Amino acid sequence: MKALAKTEKILLYDRSDPLELDCGAELPNVEVAFETYGKLNSRATNAILIFHALSGDAHAAFYHTKDDKKPGWGDFMIGQGKPFDTEKYFIICANVLGGCKGSTGPSSTNPDTGKPYGTSFPPITISDMLKPQKKLIEYLGIKRLLCTAGGSMGGMQALQWAVNYPSSLEGAIIIATSPTHTAQAIAFNSVGRYAILSDPNWKTGDYYHNGSRPLIGLKTARMIGHITYLGQLSMEEKFGRKIQEGKGCSKIDFSKEFEVESYLQYQGDSFVKRFDPNSYLYITKAIDAFDIYNGKKNLAQALKNVQAKTMVISFTSDWLYPKEESLKIVKALKINSIDTAYCNIDSPYGHDSFLVDLPKFKDAVKGFLKALGDR
Amino acid sequence: MKALAKTEKILLYDRSDPLELDCGAELPNVEVAFETYGKLNSRATNAILIFHALSGDAHAAFYHTKDDKKPGWGDFMIGQGKPFDTEKYFIICANVLGGCKGSTGPSSTNPDTGKPYGTSFPPITISDMLKPQKKLIEYLGIKRLLCTAGGSMGGMQALQWAVNYPSSLEGAIIIATSPTHTAQAIAFNSVGRYAILSDPNWKTGDYYHNGSRPLIGLKTARMIGHITYLGQLSMEEKFGRKIQEGKGCSKIDFSKEFEVESYLQYQGDSFVKRFDPNSYLYITKAIDAFDIYNGKKNLAQALKNVQAKTMVISFTSDWLYPKEESLKIVKALKINSIDTAYCNIDSPYGHDSFLVDLPKFKDAVKGFLKALGDR
Repeated sequence: MKALAKTEKILLYDRSDPLELDCGAELPNVEVAFETYGKLNSRATNAILIFHALSGDAHAAFYHTKDDKKPGWGDFMIGQGKPFDTEKYFIICANVLGGCKGSTGPSSTNPDTGKPYGTSFPPITISDMLKPQKKLIEYLGIKRLLCTAGGSMGGMQALQWAVNYPSSLEGAIIIATSPTHTAQAIAFNSVGRYAILSDPNWKTGDYYHNGSRPLIGLKTARMIGHITYLGQLSMEEKFGRKIQEGKGCSKIDFSKEFEVESYLQYQGDSFVKRFDPNSYLYITKAIDAFDIYNGKKNLAQALKNVQAKTMVISFTSDWLYPKEESLKIVKALKINSIDTAYCNIDSPYGHDSFLVDLPKFKDAVKGFLKALGDR
Repeated sequence: MKALAKTEKILLYDRSDPLELDCGAELPNVEVAFETYGKLNSRATNAILIFHALSGDAHAAFYHTKDDKKPGWGDFMIGQGKPFDTEKYFIICANVLGGCKGSTGPSSTNPDTGKPYGTSFPPITISDMLKPQKKLIEYLGIKRLLCTAGGSMGGMQALQWAVNYPSSLEGAIIIATSPTHTAQAIAFNSVGRYAILSDPNWKTGDYYHNGSRPLIGLKTARMIGHITYLGQLSMEEKFGRKIQEGKGCSKIDFSKEFEVESYLQYQGDSFVKRFDPNSYLYITKAIDAFDIYNGKKNLAQALKNVQAKTMVISFTSDWLYPKEESLKIVKALKINSIDTAYCNIDSPYGHDSFLVDLPKFKDAVKGFLKALGDR
């Protein structure tokens, strides 16, 4: 039987209590979309906050309807008997600020104009994304989280949360991420943004009122991103040189040829149906600007406030967020005498490994949560 | 004093003797642009054929005019006292078939219509690129080359030449390449092609008669490619998180921010000034389709014809054509008892290392050529 969940929405900030952003701007109306799984215990000590990655949303687990073919993006991890066991824990996942899946972002209506924000939406940071989520858990009656967890951009949020709200959590699981975005990762995001910004349909972000969105640009950006999320060898094994359809001969044929090409086209086409190009621009800018150092002279200094017990996880074939980046975090936490576990999990699936049902990954998370609960 | 060279052009095929392509089509008029450096000796035994990579051309060394700021793309390797020593060797480099720097390609005039070929140009392969070059060296009076050399797509040509024309050369230097294009490398090229093909100015390749070329698509493709040519750590060291100009604050600013972003924009902008988008499409298709196996059950079988002494070179930080690909070639040649040297050269510069003046790289090439000459 499929476990069901629904996305709820809550207005967390209004004109009397606007959201103050790191850039200095204020957002008067901020809604947050979120889902919860399991039950909060009477002492509110079993709550786990999950942070989603760039293309994720609040629908982390379960199904919205019995007819849904796919559950939420992290369903392999969340549910009865799974590492984030809904029999034991109360799991929360919220769509990030700047997103397009229910939380306020560039596609939301600007209350001052009655029109979508577009690029009048202020720039946001990873820290800014945490503010509504902090307010959300307070609204849910949670003073202290048992744990936070996230991969990729979700891992940036988990790391930033442990710095910004050090006494608000017992543990943090920081997966497949880095203390700052690397030059290479910025470069890939930057080309994706160039593709969107130079799409004639982008119109400086003011494309909501007509039917044409900058989908070619967004598709290009997603295809670039998708390649960087995959492992080199798993791509080779999955696709290799399999040709999807007969080659034309004396006439050039630029339609899909190798299977990997049609796979990327498919991934790009399905992404543009569900994601707002401006949200892609704003969120990748926040990711690129992520810098936990925040002017401190070294990472141990930058992480000095952290109190949470942590588990840092990397994956062997993740070349976008390689293990060296995770190890920087681990070393800095160890210098600060923080209780830190580190797992470099053997996986061929590249950066996307954090979205793959891997027994060792699940065991690591399960073990960490059990140890947290036993304390 | 700057050594000078000029690009020459020669018509190698005409209606009476058309170029037969692997696809079955025939090209009636094929011109080849080439440069030579040094002098052919009286017995014509000192000739070295250099193959350029995707974005290269026949201008491999020296300067076209005394006022040129930059010499040819391989000038660090070619010249008096350099590994390809123009005091000893006669060096030849030709623009590839399908290119846009003097050799016949999609931007050339189709003699049947009097208009540029565009996508009526037939598809080409790496083997096809070799045919005019083989005819060129015969025209130059060379029966047997002392050596061939090339990196990346040039390495594919060097490998294919050793298979196709086994008795026509003494040695081959095969640099930073692979026996077939990997799924990941195909994927990056494929997204670049998508960007060009979906640029409204592409117009199914028929953009030559008006002023608007699909430059946004070509720029996107080049930016993607450029990231894959660089080493991860050298990017980090070169750019890190240096911000190019002051951040805007409460207003989003998508203009260049991190130095790596403006660097990529610059690289993209300068590339589109000198390269034809259709040539980019045709040449990347040829690269992606490259498959030295050609239906053989293993690589040793596929390389059975090779007679040339070979040197295979990879670079430690090249993740696009990783050393495992070079090692496949080395092992297959060893199985066939071919005299093969292999160097994995320590370099932080990624795939582009083959275009960088590295002492170990130069020493390796110099040593191999000396040994060839001594035999």
